[in-house]
Amino acid sequence: MSISDGANYAPSAAAEHVVAPGEFRFAAAFLDHGHINGQVNGLLDAGGELVAVYDTDPSRLKAFCERFPTARVVEHFADILADDSIQLVAAAAIPNQRADIGVQVLKAGKDYFTDKSPFTTLEQLETVRQTVERTNRRYFVYYAERLHNEAAWRAGEITQSGEIGDVIQVLNIAPHRLSAATRPHWFFDKPSYGGILTDIGSHQVEQFLTYAGCLEASLTMARVRKHPEYPGLEDFGEMAMVGDNGASFYSRVDWFTPDGMPVWGDGRTFILGTKGSIEVRKYVDLARKAPASVILLADQKGVYELDCAGTVGFPFFGQLILDSLHGTDTAMTQAHIFKAAELSMAAQKMADEQHG
Amino acid sequence: MSISDGANYAPSAAAEHVVAPGEFRFAAAFLDHGHINGQVNGLLDAGGELVAVYDTDPSRLKAFCERFPTARVVEHFADILADDSIQLVAAAAIPNQRADIGVQVLKAGKDYFTDKSPFTTLEQLETVRQTVERTNRRYFVYYAERLHNEAAWRAGEITQSGEIGDVIQVLNIAPHRLSAATRPHWFFDKPSYGGILTDIGSHQVEQFLTYAGCLEASLTMARVRKHPEYPGLEDFGEMAMVGDNGASFYSRVDWFTPDGMPVWGDGRTFILGTKGSIEVRKYVDLARKAPASVILLADQKGVYELDCAGTVGFPFFGQLILDSLHGTDTAMTQAHIFKAAELSMAAQKMADEQHG
Repeated sequence: MSISDGANYAPSAAAEHVVAPGEFRFAAAFLDHGHINGQVNGLLDAGGELVAVYDTDPSRLKAFCERFPTARVVEHFADILADDSIQLVAAAAIPNQRADIGVQVLKAGKDYFTDKSPFTTLEQLETVRQTVERTNRRYFVYYAERLHNEAAWRAGEITQSGEIGDVIQVLNIAPHRLSAATRPHWFFDKPSYGGILTDIGSHQVEQFLTYAGCLEASLTMARVRKHPEYPGLEDFGEMAMVGDNGASFYSRVDWFTPDGMPVWGDGRTFILGTKGSIEVRKYVDLARKAPASVILLADQKGVYELDCAGTVGFPFFGQLILDSLHGTDTAMTQAHIFKAAELSMAAQKMADEQHG
Repeated sequence: MSISDGANYAPSAAAEHVVAPGEFRFAAAFLDHGHINGQVNGLLDAGGELVAVYDTDPSRLKAFCERFPTARVVEHFADILADDSIQLVAAAAIPNQRADIGVQVLKAGKDYFTDKSPFTTLEQLETVRQTVERTNRRYFVYYAERLHNEAAWRAGEITQSGEIGDVIQVLNIAPHRLSAATRPHWFFDKPSYGGILTDIGSHQVEQFLTYAGCLEASLTMARVRKHPEYPGLEDFGEMAMVGDNGASFYSRVDWFTPDGMPVWGDGRTFILGTKGSIEVRKYVDLARKAPASVILLADQKGVYELDCAGTVGFPFFGQLILDSLHGTDTAMTQAHIFKAAELSMAAQKMADEQHG
């Protein structure tokens, strides 16, 4: 996996196949963001079968097919929608187009698995929410910073076990490498990506809701900063919330990873509990190991280092496949997915209004 | 030094004496908080001479004199105030009494060196500010989490050098061990200590102003949580600000250090700059080394681990002595000291008003 460039972060790990060959056929479409590779890896690792791909850009299609040779290129997106053998469509479109595409997929009777952020406006969310209800299909989201990170996933298992008591706070620091020269035009256009809190903020809110076990939260603060050279790009954002169970959440997101950092971002999560505390070093153990995926856990008895790289895997993808096939909610509920996006967009709105 | 109990944190390090013997005579008084030992250590290490001590508690006095045998016990605090050979009085009284005592010291023509927090109300600050102006004496504060920590001090030198560019954000995580059984009554009485943001929050604001180079800041959020068993004790607090230069500040303070943590708190500072980033692990390098005082610096070329323990020392105390003798502002200005306290009390007030 590429460790120096977040846009191409696409982990893969050997995993138990949750389905027999042919049981879960899926397609990929709209390859605008490199995250599509991680989405496809995850589904393939869990036993999914990639049967078709659609995109408007021939060079992206070519690279994708070299990487995933089982995918048959289709000429029109409608070809995928019309194929009854396809259970799910994975996509990483330009963010403000994700909801529209998703609605088409759901209406075609398939599940959708989009890169985050799943929406750029609260209106898109509302439309999708209604479509999910009407179609009874699923709108899954690739919140990769937890779902495709072994230490981050393990941290959720630990907090849910009650090992560190009640969660008092979740604090996320999420720096990302800018790599401006490699970014597409829409990366610098705020209406396209929705703002930094809507975009990379959505990961962080999703982690808060998971680790703290919250269904709802209230915003207490939100701010963004504009990049001095690219006014359409927000290069720093922060937000704070209080969950319905009293847990606090703070997160900083930014595009300031220094060039000398061996990974695209030194992402951290600090979880403070009444009986213990957790630090997640998601991608690097600074000055020690890169890449890395490590938990440092302190409880009433001692301090423990849990090296999660290669030991936890990515159970999300198998769960998603089974949820899609059986209508269960093991991977995550639609309510959780939508709440993470709703709160991050509400934070963005709060920050935008202060600017204006 | 005691590493498991914050109340007895009292570092000491061999240092160059900035004065000749007898040139800087000081007294200690009001030994309510164990920080007095750290304050005295710092001044002695830099060449100060401890000549007198006053306290109301015989057992504390006895322990103090065993530790610092040059101190002559005086019967009345007025004896210290009347001694013209004494340049400065170091004190760690119950927080809501610190300002009153300081005013007496300043009016007696001496400088004052109090443990933080220096005040518990904005009114006390205003009285002291006026007294400083009138007397032209100094009201110094022992913001130990930077001044008596080698990595935290070094971080200030690095940010001031411009090595990481402009500071975008300072983020402080400041857990502390509760050790409820060892705490005095006033620790559980909010009017006495002023609230968690006023108290241990003041350290954090002082660091923000220093690292980000701010003279002023605006509050964006403040919250506190009451301990369920001790309603007078706030066990969690958080606050956010924006500095006059646009730098962001967030800090969490709490009393949730788990028993298994080998030090009293895994205090961290993250400083995000436009050209690099710094992490300060102030007291422990989790699962690696305890105690520890380490900086992890990432810049445009690489990542560096700077082991600061035993290599930086505590230059603050020598600077304070020379500032006291010569009327200079090398250690820190009165404006900086007061602003850190003012902002932490303003945050406390904001949090209190939301509760009420």
